[in-house]
Amino acid sequence: MTNTLKVLGISGSLRQDSYNTAALRVARDNAPSNIHIEFADLSQIPLYDQDQRDQSVPTAVTKFTKQIRAADALLFATPEYNYSMSGVLKNAIDWASREQPQPFAGKPAAIMSASMSLLGGVRAQYDLRRAMVFLDMHCLNKPEVMIASAQDRFDAEGRLTDETTREFITKLVTALGDWTRRLQAGEQR
Amino acid sequence: MTNTLKVLGISGSLRQDSYNTAALRVARDNAPSNIHIEFADLSQIPLYDQDQRDQSVPTAVTKFTKQIRAADALLFATPEYNYSMSGVLKNAIDWASREQPQPFAGKPAAIMSASMSLLGGVRAQYDLRRAMVFLDMHCLNKPEVMIASAQDRFDAEGRLTDETTREFITKLVTALGDWTRRLQAGEQR
Amino acid sequence: MTNTLKVLGISGSLRQDSYNTAALRVARDNAPSNIHIEFADLSQIPLYDQDQRDQSVPTAVTKFTKQIRAADALLFATPEYNYSMSGVLKNAIDWASREQPQPFAGKPAAIMSASMSLLGGVRAQYDLRRAMVFLDMHCLNKPEVMIASAQDRFDAEGRLTDETTREFITKLVTALGDWTRRLQAGEQR
Amino acid sequence: MTNTLKVLGISGSLRQDSYNTAALRVARDNAPSNIHIEFADLSQIPLYDQDQRDQSVPTAVTKFTKQIRAADALLFATPEYNYSMSGVLKNAIDWASREQPQPFAGKPAAIMSASMSLLGGVRAQYDLRRAMVFLDMHCLNKPEVMIASAQDRFDAEGRLTDETTREFITKLVTALGDWTRRLQAGEQR
Repeated sequence: MTNTLKVLGISGSLRQDSYNTAALRVARDNAPSNIHIEFADLSQIPLYDQDQRDQSVPTAVTKFTKQIRAADALLFATPEYNYSMSGVLKNAIDWASREQPQPFAGKPAAIMSASMSLLGGVRAQYDLRRAMVFLDMHCLNKPEVMIASAQDRFDAEGRLTDETTREFITKLVTALGDWTRRLQAGEQR
Repeated sequence: MTNTLKVLGISGSLRQDSYNTAALRVARDNAPSNIHIEFADLSQIPLYDQDQRDQSVPTAVTKFTKQIRAADALLFATPEYNYSMSGVLKNAIDWASREQPQPFAGKPAAIMSASMSLLGGVRAQYDLRRAMVFLDMHCLNKPEVMIASAQDRFDAEGRLTDETTREFITKLVTALGDWTRRLQAGEQR
Repeated sequence: MTNTLKVLGISGSLRQDSYNTAALRVARDNAPSNIHIEFADLSQIPLYDQDQRDQSVPTAVTKFTKQIRAADALLFATPEYNYSMSGVLKNAIDWASREQPQPFAGKPAAIMSASMSLLGGVRAQYDLRRAMVFLDMHCLNKPEVMIASAQDRFDAEGRLTDETTREFITKLVTALGDWTRRLQAGEQR
Repeated sequence: MTNTLKVLGISGSLRQDSYNTAALRVARDNAPSNIHIEFADLSQIPLYDQDQRDQSVPTAVTKFTKQIRAADALLFATPEYNYSMSGVLKNAIDWASREQPQPFAGKPAAIMSASMSLLGGVRAQYDLRRAMVFLDMHCLNKPEVMIASAQDRFDAEGRLTDETTREFITKLVTALGDWTRRLQAGEQR
C-alpha cells in the first residue's frame, strides 16, 4: 500500500495565470509523498470533429489519452463558465472518450473548481460528475472544493495565500489517494 | 465473500400498482442468492417539518433510518414527476438525512426508474445522484436502468412481461452486489 | 398597465421561523404597490399517492390549485435539502401538476432560496427551473436571489436585518412584475 | 407583426453529415414563410483562452457575435456527448458570452437535440438551458424536440425520412416565432 499513486491533473482553463491551474499546483505541492501529480495539456487539442477523427486522431488527443491510461486517478480543476464546466475541458473529454478502450473507465477522480464569484464554480461540478457516470469514473464525494473569490486567495504570481484553501486542497488530494487505494484493494479482493 | 448482503429497496411511489415498486420486486425475485432485498415503507412519513422534528422524530422515520443503517446497500426506484424524483422520495430522504450519524453515509447504492414516457425517468436519476454526493453515498455507475413505456412491460397484475427489462434489473442488482463487496473489501484492506 | 398583479408566494419550508417563508414576507412587504402577494399553505397536503387521488383530490390540494389559477405569477422560496428543492415543495408540485387544466401552465414565476450555507441554496434552484420547463412556466432569469448564511441576515424574530438582501428581494419582485406584464401584454398583441 | 424574423441556427456538431446540422436544415426548409434561418459556423473558433482574448478577439468569434446580435432569436441543435452539450458548442458560447454588450442577453431561443441513442440527447438540453439563465436568454418551453435513434430518421444523404420528426421540428420553429413575437410585442407595450 505504499506504492506511489500517479494522479493526472486536468485544468479546464488555458489561461497562464489560471486559478484552476494554480489550484492544481497547490495540490501537487501539498500532496502526500506517495502521490505524484502530473499535468495534462489541453491547449493543443482541436475542436472535436468526427470527420477529422475518422482520418486520424490528433497527436494531442493521443498524448492526453495515454496520460489518462497511465494514471491511477484523475484530478480535475474547472472554471465555471456560463454555469457549466468550460468548453475547453468538455471538448478534451469529448475527444478522449472516443478512444478504445475508453480511457476514463474505472478511474477514481476528484473535482475542484475555482472562480471569482461567491459560489466558487459549484454549478460546473455536477455537470462534470454527470459526465463521469457515462464515463464510468468513480468520483470522490467529499470534500467538495469550491474556491470562491479566487482573486482574494491567490497573489499576483498565482501563489496561494489562503491557508484554509490549502488545507481543503490537501484534504482533497489525500482523500483521493485513500479512495483510489480503497478501490484498487477492493478490486484485487 | 459468501455472506449474504442486505439491500434495502426504496420506492418513490406509494401507488399500490406502482411500476417502480414492481421493478423492486423483480430485483428481489431475480437477485443472486446471496443478496437479500427488503422494502422500506415511505407511506407513513409525514411532510418534513423541523418544528415537528424538534419535538420528536416520527416513528416511520425512525424505522426507515434503522432499515438504512442495517442495510449493506440501497436500491432506489423512483418515478419521474415534473422532471425530477418524486416529492415522496425526496421528503423521506430529507427526514432521514437529519438523523445522526447520518444513515446514508458510506452506503453503496443503485438507481432504477420506471415511467410511462419514452425517456424512462432519466431526468429524475441525476438529481438523486446529486443528493447522494451530499449524503456521501457511493452510487453504481452502470448499468443505468431506465424502464421506458413501463405500461407495455408489466401486465395488469404488475408482473414483468418483458425479458430484456428483467435482464437489466438482474444485472443492476448483481452489479450492486459486486460494487458493495468491492467497497467493503477495500475498506478492510 | 396599472392593474394590481396577484402573486402567490410558495414556501418550501413548513418551519414556523423558516428563512424562506421570512424572505417571502420581505417580498410581500417591499413589493411595488401594484403587486399583491398572498401565501400558499403546503402543510396540509398529504404525500402524493395516485390511489388516493383516484378516490378524491385532497382539500388542501384543491385550495392550492385554486390559488395558483387565481395568481398572475408565482414566487417560490425553497430551502436546499440534499442538494435539491425540499421534498415538501416537490410533493406539492407533484399533486397540483395532476390537476386539469394543469394550473402552472403559462404562469410567470421567480425563485428565491435561503440557506444557512455559503452557497445559498443554489443547487435547489435549477431543479425547480427544470420542473418549470415541464410545467410550462416562464421563470424570470435575473436577479437570481440566493440568500447565503441566512442566520446572519435575519434576527431571532425572523425579521430581515440585512439591507442588501432586502434590495435583492425587492428587485426580484419588481422584475417579476415587469416580466409578468410583458408576457401578458405580448399575449394580447 | 408580419415582418420576417431572423433566426440564427447553431449546431453543436462539426461533422459534415451531422444529424443536428441536418435537423437545423429541416427547420430552415419547413419554417413559416416569415421566419428566415441562417447558420453559424463554429468550426473556426479556437479553444477559449483568456490570454488570447486579451490580445485580440478571433475573427470567427467576432463574426459569430455579430450574427447573434443580428438575430431575433436563436435555434440550437446539440448532440449529447458524455451526458452534456458538446464541448464545441460550449466553447463557442464561452467565447461569445465575453463580448460586451453580452450578445445573448434578451434573445428568445429554442433547443433541439439529435442522437443515435434512445434518449435523444435529453441530458444535454438542461445544461444548455441552465447556461441560458446566466446568459439571460428566454428559452421556449415546448415542444421539446429530442430526436432519438437519429440514424433511423435520416437517410445516407442526411435527408429526413421521418414525417413525425419533421412535424415536431416545424412545430418548434413555429412556436419559436410566436414566442419571439410575443416577447417583442410585450417589450414594446
